[in-house]
Parts: sequence; C-alpha cells; structure tokens
Amino acid sequence: MWTTLRRSISVSAVQNARVSETRRPFAILEDSDVTFLQRLLGNRNVVTDTDDLQKHNNDWLNVCQGKSRLALYPSSTNEVSEILRYCNSRKLAVVPQGGNTGLVGGSVPVFDEIVLSTHKLNRIHEVAELTGVAVVDSGVVLEKLDQHIAPMGFAVPLDLPSKGSCQIGGAISTNAGGVRLIKYGSLHGSVLGLEAVLADGTVLHGLNKMRKDNTGVDLKQLFIGSEGILGVITQAAWLLAPRAAFNSVAIVGCDSFENVLKVYKNARGDLSEFLSALEMFDVDSLRCTEENLVMKNPLGEYFPFYVLIEVQGNNHGFVEEALHSFVEKVLDSGMISDGVAASDGKGIHDLWQCRERISESIRLDGYVFKYDMSVPLEKYLDLAKLLKPRIDGLAKRICVFGHMGDSNVHLNITAEEYSDELLALIEPFVYEQTVEMGGSISAEHGIGLLKKKYLPLQRDVQWLKTMRSLKHSLDSNGILNPYKVI
Amino acid sequence: MWTTLRRSISVSAVQNARVSETRRPFAILEDSDVTFLQRLLGNRNVVTDTDDLQKHNNDWLNVCQGKSRLALYPSSTNEVSEILRYCNSRKLAVVPQGGNTGLVGGSVPVFDEIVLSTHKLNRIHEVAELTGVAVVDSGVVLEKLDQHIAPMGFAVPLDLPSKGSCQIGGAISTNAGGVRLIKYGSLHGSVLGLEAVLADGTVLHGLNKMRKDNTGVDLKQLFIGSEGILGVITQAAWLLAPRAAFNSVAIVGCDSFENVLKVYKNARGDLSEFLSALEMFDVDSLRCTEENLVMKNPLGEYFPFYVLIEVQGNNHGFVEEALHSFVEKVLDSGMISDGVAASDGKGIHDLWQCRERISESIRLDGYVFKYDMSVPLEKYLDLAKLLKPRIDGLAKRICVFGHMGDSNVHLNITAEEYSDELLALIEPFVYEQTVEMGGSISAEHGIGLLKKKYLPLQRDVQWLKTMRSLKHSLDSNGILNPYKVI
Repeated sequence: MWTTLRRSISVSAVQNARVSETRRPFAILEDSDVTFLQRLLGNRNVVTDTDDLQKHNNDWLNVCQGKSRLALYPSSTNEVSEILRYCNSRKLAVVPQGGNTGLVGGSVPVFDEIVLSTHKLNRIHEVAELTGVAVVDSGVVLEKLDQHIAPMGFAVPLDLPSKGSCQIGGAISTNAGGVRLIKYGSLHGSVLGLEAVLADGTVLHGLNKMRKDNTGVDLKQLFIGSEGILGVITQAAWLLAPRAAFNSVAIVGCDSFENVLKVYKNARGDLSEFLSALEMFDVDSLRCTEENLVMKNPLGEYFPFYVLIEVQGNNHGFVEEALHSFVEKVLDSGMISDGVAASDGKGIHDLWQCRERISESIRLDGYVFKYDMSVPLEKYLDLAKLLKPRIDGLAKRICVFGHMGDSNVHLNITAEEYSDELLALIEPFVYEQTVEMGGSISAEHGIGLLKKKYLPLQRDVQWLKTMRSLKHSLDSNGILNPYKVI
Repeated sequence: MWTTLRRSISVSAVQNARVSETRRPFAILEDSDVTFLQRLLGNRNVVTDTDDLQKHNNDWLNVCQGKSRLALYPSSTNEVSEILRYCNSRKLAVVPQGGNTGLVGGSVPVFDEIVLSTHKLNRIHEVAELTGVAVVDSGVVLEKLDQHIAPMGFAVPLDLPSKGSCQIGGAISTNAGGVRLIKYGSLHGSVLGLEAVLADGTVLHGLNKMRKDNTGVDLKQLFIGSEGILGVITQAAWLLAPRAAFNSVAIVGCDSFENVLKVYKNARGDLSEFLSALEMFDVDSLRCTEENLVMKNPLGEYFPFYVLIEVQGNNHGFVEEALHSFVEKVLDSGMISDGVAASDGKGIHDLWQCRERISESIRLDGYVFKYDMSVPLEKYLDLAKLLKPRIDGLAKRICVFGHMGDSNVHLNITAEEYSDELLALIEPFVYEQTVEMGGSISAEHGIGLLKKKYLPLQRDVQWLKTMRSLKHSLDSNGILNPYKVI
C-alpha cells in the first residue's frame, strides 16, 4: 500500500527545503576512504555502484534525492563504531538509514553524505519468555519481530502501515506512533534500553533490560525521536506487549462533532482497559473511498462523521460484550445515529479497510497536500475549517481523518494537480494555526528535512539553542545526519 | 507509615558517602546575597532561621543532614529563573527540593547549598476533561492532584506510599515507579511536557500537551529521573489515566518459586488488560508481620511464597469474574496451593495490608539494611540466596518482597542492631551481584548521594563520561544539586 503513496508530498516543498541548505564543509570522499572501508567491512558491504546506490539516495516517497557515492553495510556494533570513528576523524558526513520508510526526508542524504545502513544488523538476540523483553539489532524489521514473538504470546508494542519494511532502529529514531499508541503508549515508555554509537565511535552501552532502572540520567531517551542526529542506534531492549487473543471493531456514525467528542469520552471511560484504537474519518474521506476505490459505506446512511473503535482482550466474551454494551449505550443516548460491529477476522478486516484505504483513495484525486498534526481534541476540525474559505475553488477536497484517540489528525487537501498557489495558501498557515492552538506540527513523522524550516514555529530560541548545544556536545564535528531537524 | 521508616538506612553508609565528598569551591553565602533574594522573593519566602531550616537540611529518613543557611520559596517560574540566574552568576550551589521524601539523600544539601523549595509552586493550572491531560506546577502534592481529578474520572498514573507528601516535580525528577507501574507504565511515557529552568536561569518551555509530538530532540526526557542535576522542573503536562471503577484483589500461596513464576506468567497473559498490581512476599516477610505487628496469615496454611494480584476495570462483573477464573485455573492446575480474594473495600484493604505493612514490621526487628533492585525475574530470590550463607548468624532475618510484576525486588536484612561487620558482608557484594545478573542497583529510588559510589558498577566509563559532558553543557558551573548522582 505504501508504494501508492509515492510522490504524494509536494516536490516544490522539498525543493524549497533543499535549496535553503548549503553543503557544509565536510571532507570529500576519496578513493583511500573507500579502500579503508572496504578493508574494514569487506567489499560486498561497501556499495559504490550508482544504480545500487539509488535506493539509498531516494526516499520512500521518491521526493528527496541525495547524491551519496557510498553506502555501507556494517553487521556489528563494532563495525558501526569503526566506521564512525574513521568518518569523524576524516570529517566525512554520515546519514544513518534503516528501512528508509520515513516521510520527512530524514533518512536519505541531502548532498553526498555516506549512507550507513543498518540492514545487516538484523539479529533477534533474545526474547525473555517470562517478562517479554526482547533484545534486537536495530535493523530487524518490525513485522519480522512480531512474527517471531507471536507464538510466545507477545506483540510488538507499535503498529504501523510500514511494518513490513521499517526497521526497529528507524522506528525508535523517529519515535513512531501508529494506530495503537492509545493501547501501547509511547516508545519512550516501552524501550527499556538502547545501545548507540556516537559520532566519534564511542559505544554507549545502555542495553538495560529491566522495567525499572533509575541509575542516573537516562541517556537512551535522547536517541528516541532524535532522527539520527545524536547517534546511531545499534541494539534495543524492548518491552513487548501481551498479545491479545480477541478483537472486536465497530464503526459508528455521528451527526455532529459534538457527538463524536461524546463518543470519544465514553469510549475512553467505558472501554478503558480494552480500547486499542480510536480512529475518526469524515464523510469527505468516506466519499473519496467510494468514488475512487468503489468502496462501500459501512453504514446504510451518510453521516458527517465516522468513528472506528477497536477493543482487544484475552476473554472473548468480555471483549464482545464490552463493545456491544458500549454501542448500545451511545445509540440509546443519541450520541451516534447508527453503528456496525464485527468480531470475526473478515468483518474486522473489512471495517478497518474503511479507515485504512483513505490515504490510497485520496491520492487518486490527482495531487495531495498531506499534513500530520496533533491538535487539542475539541479543535480536531478547526484546521480544515480555517483552510476551507482560503482554498475554496482551488482544492478538490479537504479530508480529515486520523488517530483521534491520540489527538492526531491527518489533514489532506486534494487537487487535480500540484500548484504553487495552493501550497502558498496552505503553508505556513496550517503550521502557524497548529502552533497557535497549542498543537504539534509533527505528531508522529518527525522533522527531518521537510519540516525543518517550520520547527522554529514550534520550539523557541532557548529550546533550539539547547538542542544545538546537546548536538554539539555529542557530535562536535556535526557529521551525523547533517541538514536535518536543526 | 513513612515516619516509622526513619533511621532504617545505615547511618554509617551515609557517613561513608558523605566523607568521600569534599566541598567544591562554590561561593560562600554573603549577607548581600540574602538581601538580594529577599528583595526578589519577599522576606517571608526566604528562610534563614536555623530551626526553620532543619526540615530542609534533613531528609525523610533522617540520615542525611546538610548545613544550608538558606531556603527559598519561589512561587513562579520567573522567580525560579531569577534565583538560578543570580546563583549561577555568583557560583552559589543550589539543591532543588520537592516534598523531600526521597530515599537516597538526593533532595537535601550535602554542605551549604541553597535549598530551592518548590513548595509554593502549587497550582493545578488545567485539566483537560476530554483527554485527561493535566498541567500542574511541580510543587503540587501527588495526592492533592489525585483528589482533584477523581470526580472527572481520572487517576494520577503513579501510586506511591508517600503520595500524601511527595510533589510531582520530585516524583518526575526521581522517575518514581511505585505499585502500579505494571498498569500505568513509566513516567517517560505519561509525562507529555515539562517546563524546566536550567542552571543559568534559562527557561525551557516544553509544556507540550499533545500525546504525539515529534518535533526534534525530546529534551524534557532529560529531566525525568535525573534527580535535579540538569534543571529545576517548574511545570508538567501529564497524561492522566482513566480511573477504574472496580478493583478485586487476591492473595495466593505457592509451594515453590517455580510456581510463583507460573502464576506471574499466567496473570500477565490471562489478566493482561485488567492487571494493576502483581506483588510478592516470602514467608519470612509474612512471619515478621505476624510476630512484630500481630497480623494474621491471610491463608489458613503457610507457604514459602505469597503473590498479591490486583485487577481493575470499569465493569464490575468482568473484573471479578476475570480474577475468579484466574484463581480457579491456577488452583486447579496446582500452580497455587490456596488463595483468597476480595472485591469489597474492606476486604481489599485488608489483603493489601499484608503486603504494605511488611516494611513497618521489619523495622521492629531492630535494624534493617534495605535494598531496592531490579533483577531478572527468574533470579528474583538469588540475591537473598547468595547472601544467606555470608551473613548466617549475624542477621536476624532476610525478607524478600516487592513489585514482582516489574522485576523489582525489595531485599531487607534485619538484625538486632546496626553492625559494620554485617554491612561489609552485604555491600558492595549485593550491588556487584545485581550488576552481574543483569539487574539494576536502583530500580526506583534513584542514585542521589547514597548510591553514588556504586553507580560505576552499573554504568561504564563512556556512559559516565557522556553524562558528565551533558551535565557540563547544561550547567557549566555545576551549581545544580552538586555531589549527587555523578
């Protein structure tokens, strides 16, 4: 599904982001560097062929293109350390790269940075069957770990559309959120330990496997969500979640946003311990899936808003009963106008499709301006409302959907084709309004290259200064993932 | 209950910790400093009277005594900033202090540091009724916030015996864990935003209230668990938990530790979404409560091990049925030999007392050497086993109990009275063994002053060096909570 998203981010926006960057005075790669690194890693782990480099130079969305002449495949922490020690001494810039599924251009070179791929750091070292703590290399693919631990009764506490490609180190570096954050909580809570390599090759041994560990400054937190600018994650100790045996899903229709909020409030309260997802989409999103993908309205009638609620648990009766009681309650009280529920695999899948295929359907409108914000929940629709009069006549559709349970809104504006005029009406307006209302200009995708120029809207001078000072104290030559974030 | 714990930590250990410190060359407080600060805060917020200073100079356990001549009561972030800016320019050392309930001497002066009390930073600014995000001053007492939010259907996602005194800023600085971490998760996950003041007076505005916010390095994480050495927390945005309407508690008896582990494994799986506490105590702990507090064995017979299991949820039937089914299952399969459960207030209280009053009963043996470790779960008893032959004849009792659900063991060795000989047999042995088995020498109490000399057992040279470099980049004069942690 992800491939269909390609080219959905504004190429102009990317060009704008890049042209504002100037290559910093890092060293230029020399033949002797390649020779040194070949000797260190073996020839087959040093990629210099232009064609082979393409997948490392281009991002997932195919909008950010770097010009790296070298990609490296270390297969141990020691090799990562040796690479960085060498590059730091030579002042060669390095971009760490996992599954390269990021959406803000954070994992590809901007100029000629060397790509340090974690692809061959791919071992699952141990899974404690008792406590569910897994120790894994950063290059392990999320879905691969999930399949490995399923028979032990555990689940990876992070669920993303890109789970078949994205790597654990990249997910941690991005502080990925996904569809079940409401159940699993943040990676800052579930990642218990990290091993990371600093720019000068120093290995930080922080692979704590204990759930409670208060022994000084929790340095590992620095690497969660800092998008590779402070160090390269090589291993992680991760607290897995118990795997729920039973799911039930409902989609309900609401005639007002006030009622959507009531549904949210009641679901958080009544379904509390069972709630594993709370997603929302508006009727424009639904109509888009109908028109572009020939999908069906899951309910008989049309309502302005739809909420998808998923519950999980280990007792089938409880899970089903909890959801049914809830749906009955909100129906009887008039908070919803209609609802449909499913507890079997096929039914659950079909209901999820109504929400999951929105992104795909939207793209078929022509061009999409995509935004990923957090906003105060009662203002979930406000960005769309504010934009509507500004872009009337220019945009085809404004679709609002997203992880409402986390106050995370995906705002999508479609048009027949890309236009500078439309972009200028949306940005920076949409970011300014988000900050104005106390939201976040990047809920889960990060800053990377694409949102870098908007970061000062969110973070004040002192915060940015402290970030820079931290970056400098850990990477004094600034070789790690330059041009990104700050 | 906490007052009864006083003097339970080795005075000699404290003296050892302190004598290894030398007063660093900070400035000496002058009259002109007091005058300046009185003008800034008003006379009544500047404490110079020796008697009034006593509670700031002495810690909760009454084993760490500082000699500060000045305690300050700022009531705004701006005042905290002005204080630190001044002290930094004068090179006067400062110790931040919340409820002063810490157990490792982290919140009292070691020499003559100025005490910066958060006592008057005590406003609950807002609680979002919809999402349950509370914005509070750091000096708000945990229980006070909990009482404030209870009618809104929320609970503070941290439960501690000291909740009636401890302040939110102190709890966050300590990364407190408590009895329900298994349900609520770590503060690194639930604290969404922090406002903190750096040593030079810089205010870091990081009061994000969004559940998802990936906008650069998550600087606030640095202040969670760093015990006030990097900055003073002034406000926090905290994601509250839904308040569960119903509880049920069981205590079960096991004839082997193997069976205790089976009970743990099954509880994590079967009770999964309901599980809110999983505590363990051994028969020596139980006998101690019987002998010293005339408490009763909750089960008819004696078993080597007891496990307390608490479940919570918003459906009374589910909660009770889940626990009953679970107890029946583990009884039928022979994992437990007996069990008792309660769902009413009085019954729940009485069962919790069996676990909660152990600390109090132990103290009545005479003298207690207390340890708070994390260990791999299958080695939960190993520290006690290793110690037993070493201290046979010298110790009165070795009691093992704690938050087993988090792999957190409270190891307590009692004796008629304190002895250097016994201490030397226990320390550093018990810390070395903890590290050897991959545990943590401080699960939830922190390092502070008391465990500082053992930190290098846990953290290697590179980790300590990075911590120091970070400390230096945020507090170049080292005025904030000196002599602690590193």
